[in-house]
Order: sequence, then structure tokens, then C-alpha cells
Amino acid sequence: MKSVIGIDIGGTITKIGLVSEEAVCIKKTSFRTKDFNNFLSYIDKIHLSISEIIDDKNKILGIGIGAPNASKNGTIETPANLNWKGNLNLVESLRNKIDIPIFLSNDANCAAIGEMIYGNAKGLKDFIVITLGTGLGSGIVSNGKLIEGYDGFAAELGHFSIKNNGRLTGLDIKGGLESYVSATGIKRTIMYMLSKYMNDSIFRKIAFNDLHGEDITKAAENNDFIAIKAYEYTGKILGEALANFVTFSQPEAIILTGGLAHSGKWILNPTKKTFEKKLLPFYKGKVKILLSGLEDKDSAILGSAALVWKNI
Amino acid sequence: MKSVIGIDIGGTITKIGLVSEEAVCIKKTSFRTKDFNNFLSYIDKIHLSISEIIDDKNKILGIGIGAPNASKNGTIETPANLNWKGNLNLVESLRNKIDIPIFLSNDANCAAIGEMIYGNAKGLKDFIVITLGTGLGSGIVSNGKLIEGYDGFAAELGHFSIKNNGRLTGLDIKGGLESYVSATGIKRTIMYMLSKYMNDSIFRKIAFNDLHGEDITKAAENNDFIAIKAYEYTGKILGEALANFVTFSQPEAIILTGGLAHSGKWILNPTKKTFEKKLLPFYKGKVKILLSGLEDKDSAILGSAALVWKNI
Repeated sequence: MKSVIGIDIGGTITKIGLVSEEAVCIKKTSFRTKDFNNFLSYIDKIHLSISEIIDDKNKILGIGIGAPNASKNGTIETPANLNWKGNLNLVESLRNKIDIPIFLSNDANCAAIGEMIYGNAKGLKDFIVITLGTGLGSGIVSNGKLIEGYDGFAAELGHFSIKNNGRLTGLDIKGGLESYVSATGIKRTIMYMLSKYMNDSIFRKIAFNDLHGEDITKAAENNDFIAIKAYEYTGKILGEALANFVTFSQPEAIILTGGLAHSGKWILNPTKKTFEKKLLPFYKGKVKILLSGLEDKDSAILGSAALVWKNI
Repeated sequence: MKSVIGIDIGGTITKIGLVSEEAVCIKKTSFRTKDFNNFLSYIDKIHLSISEIIDDKNKILGIGIGAPNASKNGTIETPANLNWKGNLNLVESLRNKIDIPIFLSNDANCAAIGEMIYGNAKGLKDFIVITLGTGLGSGIVSNGKLIEGYDGFAAELGHFSIKNNGRLTGLDIKGGLESYVSATGIKRTIMYMLSKYMNDSIFRKIAFNDLHGEDITKAAENNDFIAIKAYEYTGKILGEALANFVTFSQPEAIILTGGLAHSGKWILNPTKKTFEKKLLPFYKGKVKILLSGLEDKDSAILGSAALVWKNI
């Protein structure tokens, strides 16, 4: 039986899995991306990790890799949240180690392909996946195909500017969407709400660097005023942005995934409320906002693995 | 020799042309859309006009129609700038009169197809056409295909909201792009500049309803402060919006067409300046802003006619 390797390169963790034709992650391993200051040592570590989880190279159809700032040419270009600078020849470097087909795409594009093959976008030809992690990533499918753009850098909606003179993103974009809507974004919003209101809150005792997304959900469940305000603010901005995105590609569904999406109703309700209000009349009732249909733990690996099935 | 019929349904004028395989408009006619309060009388007029410009129905391969708010199902839905309300069965009504293949698409989508087959988008797989007429229309091509969306209403970028609490559009969208960037938008901006500055200007003598786009270009050529400010303001907003659109589909080119684009450098220079400034680092130098490559007079007819060539 043939299998494929799926690799998800995250700013913090790299996940590698052996995936069956039935989209089951049979074996997996992971390590800290940030531990490698040298890119070629990092490639060696990937190669070693692959060897650890496969029995026979000849049974592997190919390797699918999802990475931030992936280009169409097998490179990672000027990544904002990785240790290495410049243009990194990821596919070529790895192919020098292991001679099987390797496919690279943007990590959020992989999430979109994963949703299309295994998740909540099954059977849809027009949809958008929004990944709400450290930053905000996006994968856009139109006419049943990923929108990749001229050289692979389409769907960078985290850097979509929602207001002039707004918060700065890592790429110095003023008002970039991910500076508001992401795990980091909502932490910044907690600080903003602490500045705006005097209400009591658990967050008056927690420093920015000690603050985690789950704390915000838990606080909201406990009726913490600042946490609830932060979700309302974040959802309103996301709902407005998504309504604007509909004027571009009129998706049938927008699927939210990643850490911030795990808060469930807390992010979903205010997002949907503003979204429906802001939608143009001829879109109303036609665009669903959904949470991911994939088990989150393996979704990044499955999405990357799907790159191989899609291309072979 | 086979030909096709191209029809452009505009809010003011309906244009109908007989188009050869070489994309030459052999014969054409036009009439005022606004003169018809009854939709079926309007269909009769289209039918009559077609009869007038063709010799032999059997030599006609099909009819391509570009219209505002065209759906995938051959209907026009709740058009903002036509006399008739509700959902109009355009294709069915016309096919009852003349039994040849009829294809309907959004007017700006037709412009995009026209640019792809005959104009400045020849050979491009990823581009956006922006039509700057009474409103702002758009046609988006990705992977060599039009982005039509779930039921044909993608690419409504005129209603893309650029700021909360901004100007109202015809569809009551606050800050809709076309309320700033269109022939009507720049007229509104002339009023705004007259409110903001006290400088002398020819526009202090012209009422809003008597103001035409060409007057603004002429005034700018004559160094009119208000006209120059209006172009700068419009170009800045358009440049910002286009830089945002690039994060969506990363086009290789953005093509401007329609009345406001005829002002040439006056709109192009401030647009390009802001656009290049706002582009993300990995897009810089990769996205061209161009004027239409089509003779404007027939481009709407040619674009609609191209629908037939594309579908047959």
C-alpha cells in the first residue's frame, strides 16, 4: 500500500507525518523549528525525521510540504517568522537528500486543500479557509482551484490592510488584518481593552508574554468583561473583513481554523453577526461561516499530504 | 463566414454589434436603455435591433451579453442602476424571440474576457480589470479563468468597503469603493475639495449635475488646484485598494478602463505612486498597472461577443 509524507513547517514547530490513502496519519513526529539557526542543519533534521517514520522509501509516493511564504518555485521567500533570511531553496535542498517527488505550497493553501479533500469544503468549488494562528493565513479556492497568483503569493489576507494608521504587522503593514485577528491579535486587543476600560478582569494580573489564547476563552466563560469585549471587537473586525472578501470571490463557505477558532462561539457569534449585517443584498443567506471539519491535531499534516494526492 | 452578436447593457445606453471572427465590429447600433420602463418592450427593442444589423440568422454563432448584476442562471438580479426591479429573465425572454445560443455575464467580466482575448491581458493567467464608469466594475481572472463565485456575483469590487462611515453607495454600503473611484465618485470628490479648500477653481461655477469627467481632466491640464487635488485623492484611494486586492489574487497586471481611465496620467500617476508604496515586499515590481488595450468605443461590444467565442 502506498503512502505519502506530509510536512507542516510552522514558525514554532515542524510536524511530519506518514499518511495513508485513506487520509489516516499512521505515524508522526515533530521538533522545534526555532532550534535550528542553520537552514541546512534543519534540512538534515527533516531528512532524519522522515527516515524514522518510514519503513521503505519505495512505498512513498511523494512529500507534500506546507510552509509560510512558499513560492511556486520550491523556495521560501523572506519569511517573517522563521530564523532564516533571504530565499531558501527548500525543495532542491531536500531532494538532494531524498529522491522522490516533493511539492511545496503555502501552509494556508495546504489547509484549504485539506478541507477540500477531507474536511468541510468537500464538494465545494468556491470557498476560503482562514487560519487563525500566530498570524492569519488564508487559502482561496475558486472554480475548484487554488488561487495561487502570478508566482504563488496570492491569498496573503493576513496582510490585507483594514485601516490606515492601524496596528503594525510584522511586515510593517499598517492596519494589517492579522494584527487584530489572530492569536497574537486578540492578545493585543486584551491590552487595548485594559487601556480603554477600568472594569475588573483577570487580565490585570497577567503580563502580555504570559497570556495564552485559552486563557481568554476561559475568562469569557467566566463572564470576564475584558475577555468578552475582546472577542466582540475581534469578531466585528473579522466579520467586516470577510464581508469585503465576498465581493472578491463570492465563496459558498468561509472556514475558520487554528487556535483562535478553537474558542468556538466566542469568535463565531460576533463574526457572523457583523458579517450578515455587512453583506451586500445579493449575497445574503448564500455564504456560510463554518469551523474546520478536520481534527485539528493532524490537519496541517493531512493538508500538506493532500498536495501529493492532488499533484500525482 | 460566421459572426457573433455582442450586446452591452449599460445603465444609460444599450450597444449591439455584429462581430467577426477577427474581432472586428462590422455593424453596430445603440439605443437608450432608460427609455424602456417595461422590460418586455426592452427585449422587443433588442430583438428588433439585432434583426437590423444581421443579414442571415444562420450565420450567427451566438449572442454574448454583458449586463450589470448578471447571474449564472441567465438573469439580472436586483440591478441598482436599471429601470426594472426584481429578477429579470433576460436570456429566456430573448431566446423566446430568437433561437440561437445566448450567453450572459457581468459587464465587467466581459471587459476582462475582452482584454484577455484582444487586449492588454493577452497571454496573462492572473489579472484584474477595473472599469471606471458611472460606478466601478471589476473582472478578476485567476489561473486563466474568470472568478465568478458561487452564483456569478464575484468581483463586485465597487461595493468593497474601504472605510467605515464613509460615503454611501447606491446599495447603501458605507465607504463603498465606487463612491470614491468612478466618474460619479470623482465628481463627489470635487464637491469635497470645494468644501475643504478656498482656492479659486472653475468648479465654483459649475453645478454638480452639469459636471462631466472630461471637464475635470481639462481643468487639471489648466492647473486647476481643485481638479488636481481631486485626482490625487482619487488615485490615492484607488492605489490603496488595488494594493489590498493584490493580497487576494496576486495578479500580474491590473488594467484600468472606462471614462475615468481616459484621464490618463491624471489618474494613473497618483494611483501607481500609492500602489507601489503600499505593496507588500514580495509583490514589489511584479504587478503592472496598465490602461486598457482596446479601442474604447467597441470594447464593451467586443468583450460581450468574446463570451460566445469562449463558450462555443
